[in-house]
Amino acid sequence: MSDNIKGLQGITAGQTAICTVGEDGKSLHYRGYSITDLANKGSFEEVAYLLLYKKLPTQQELDAFKKRLAADRALPKHLINVLELLPKESHPMDVLRSGCSVLGSFEPETDEHDGYAITERLLSLFPSMLCYWYHYHFDGKKINTQTDAPDIAAHFLQLLHGVVDPLHHKAINTSLMLYAEHGFNASTFTARVCAATLPDFYAPITAAIGTLSGPLHGGANEHAYDLISLYANTKDAEEGVKQKLADKEKIMGFGHRVYKTHDPRSDFAKILSQQLADERGDATMYPVAERIEQVMWDEKKLFPNVDFYTACVYHFCGIPKTLFTPLFVFARTAGWAAHIMEQRADNRLIRPDADYIGPGALDYVGIADRG
Amino acid sequence: MSDNIKGLQGITAGQTAICTVGEDGKSLHYRGYSITDLANKGSFEEVAYLLLYKKLPTQQELDAFKKRLAADRALPKHLINVLELLPKESHPMDVLRSGCSVLGSFEPETDEHDGYAITERLLSLFPSMLCYWYHYHFDGKKINTQTDAPDIAAHFLQLLHGVVDPLHHKAINTSLMLYAEHGFNASTFTARVCAATLPDFYAPITAAIGTLSGPLHGGANEHAYDLISLYANTKDAEEGVKQKLADKEKIMGFGHRVYKTHDPRSDFAKILSQQLADERGDATMYPVAERIEQVMWDEKKLFPNVDFYTACVYHFCGIPKTLFTPLFVFARTAGWAAHIMEQRADNRLIRPDADYIGPGALDYVGIADRG
Repeated sequence: MSDNIKGLQGITAGQTAICTVGEDGKSLHYRGYSITDLANKGSFEEVAYLLLYKKLPTQQELDAFKKRLAADRALPKHLINVLELLPKESHPMDVLRSGCSVLGSFEPETDEHDGYAITERLLSLFPSMLCYWYHYHFDGKKINTQTDAPDIAAHFLQLLHGVVDPLHHKAINTSLMLYAEHGFNASTFTARVCAATLPDFYAPITAAIGTLSGPLHGGANEHAYDLISLYANTKDAEEGVKQKLADKEKIMGFGHRVYKTHDPRSDFAKILSQQLADERGDATMYPVAERIEQVMWDEKKLFPNVDFYTACVYHFCGIPKTLFTPLFVFARTAGWAAHIMEQRADNRLIRPDADYIGPGALDYVGIADRG
Repeated sequence: MSDNIKGLQGITAGQTAICTVGEDGKSLHYRGYSITDLANKGSFEEVAYLLLYKKLPTQQELDAFKKRLAADRALPKHLINVLELLPKESHPMDVLRSGCSVLGSFEPETDEHDGYAITERLLSLFPSMLCYWYHYHFDGKKINTQTDAPDIAAHFLQLLHGVVDPLHHKAINTSLMLYAEHGFNASTFTARVCAATLPDFYAPITAAIGTLSGPLHGGANEHAYDLISLYANTKDAEEGVKQKLADKEKIMGFGHRVYKTHDPRSDFAKILSQQLADERGDATMYPVAERIEQVMWDEKKLFPNVDFYTACVYHFCGIPKTLFTPLFVFARTAGWAAHIMEQRADNRLIRPDADYIGPGALDYVGIADRG
């Protein structure tokens, strides 16, 4: 069996009106709008609204949406108790996975508290969950998560740092737009397979968080950071990466299953990374990252994907490495939710066949006679 | 696009050596052994061992396996705290979903505590979690889950009822064998898509529990119970089901995506159901179920699947309806784990394509100019 079949690569598994990825090998559109326009001119809240409600909001709609999100940031008491019980050593992705699952018991889906309401609540609450757990275990502080920040990016930065640097705010807001949606990627496809048995709305989101936590998916930005951090200067980076390539090591943050020539999101991450490096007076990390990009192109004709420069962006924004993938969750929740709603609206149980390669029919031998 | 593509029906999504489902439209084999032999002559622990370790155990291997499982039944303290926080109104499937996810933080996967160790722990702990939560919220009791029961079926019955009726023990043990594995069904396929990004072992199990909780999958036995419970006698059942068919209502517990002529598991569930009815002196539920089976065959040529008579079995064993699908989890954990290990051993990211049916390229209009 070919690797393509094992990975369902190039195999159509359904219909969607949410997103196109990799048309001409290099573009990305959310409901018809190019990521370039959205990231240049929009905000994450506009993008989330577009994904969920299928149109760009008017000013009035956007104001109402942001007002609902801002009112939804306080953690329920029992969720606080659970977050305090989850140990400091937990991976923060597992904290969000558990936080989402238990929220399903505290605030179950009903006709009133429907998928839209749950999605809006999760968009507000994931940053609150993450930062509450983080400060409780790492700083011994019980923070109040009901901030008056104007949007989700600011809400997160306010909770994490206590202040919102304007360039950090712009960077996180843009990054959330870049990460918001990406077609039938592994976590979204997991969410759709799960949603197709018609469980509650929390089941597919919880499943998707677990899928995103893997190093072959969301975890890639953490690995990109590890790579870039290895080198003290561009010369070491060039030599080191060439050696890794010679040793056939996998270099995370390059290439993509669907994009063939270019990841359009990487341009934004790279520019933000450079702006943040300038602001901080960084003379190491950004040049090292650029040199690695150059080596990967010269040696392998591989381009950076969104995860590579995003690692620099998040680091320059003062975000601890283990919180990188949770930021991906904040964003992708909008995309997952749109796909769950789309799956529910035209549902069919997803149950493929498998090619059996095990033993033929065997006779059952009583336990006393087994060798 | 055809419904088949949307559901990946008849589309091969990978290889497996674990199971064949529906060869000749009606058979089921676990690693080459027919479910008929296994359910007649084996035990759930033998089946779980076979699925995990790829061979039927010798007496010594089975004894050691059961000893490890029996030693693993006590809940960690923090998990007890979380179970107490999850409200009485939670669906028990959501309790297991959250319990599995948080256990990943309390007992993370490591080289020593690997997938096999985690699977054995979950096989022991899921009945403990469920019964602890249930008794705490419904009876106000904090039970000790470290029983000395000889196997998982007895462990569960001991925790739930305080005693182990021999026929109930046989029924639950057989039922766990029937539910242990079923190829690329929706929950198992979810687990494989999730596992393919290489997250921790708890992520795909948590995802699978969420998927199984849907009424189109594991939740079907609860719906079958609701149907059978509607009728006080066979005449009402016949008239009622005919009316539902005339009204185009979906009747749960009949037919199957893969079996075309017969679900071999249903035979065992039906016989057990009859034996339990005799033991209890039931003169209503079993005859009603049989009549519904007859009507569905006469009217629609549909056969009962495993869920239909299992609903009777569980009810006759004194199991509350909301605990039916959690029993499916106890069993299927063995199959899910085998598939996660198989996926990891020959991994490829699972990322299908989608057929885009949304709008073409749209111009971004500034928010002030939106209608």
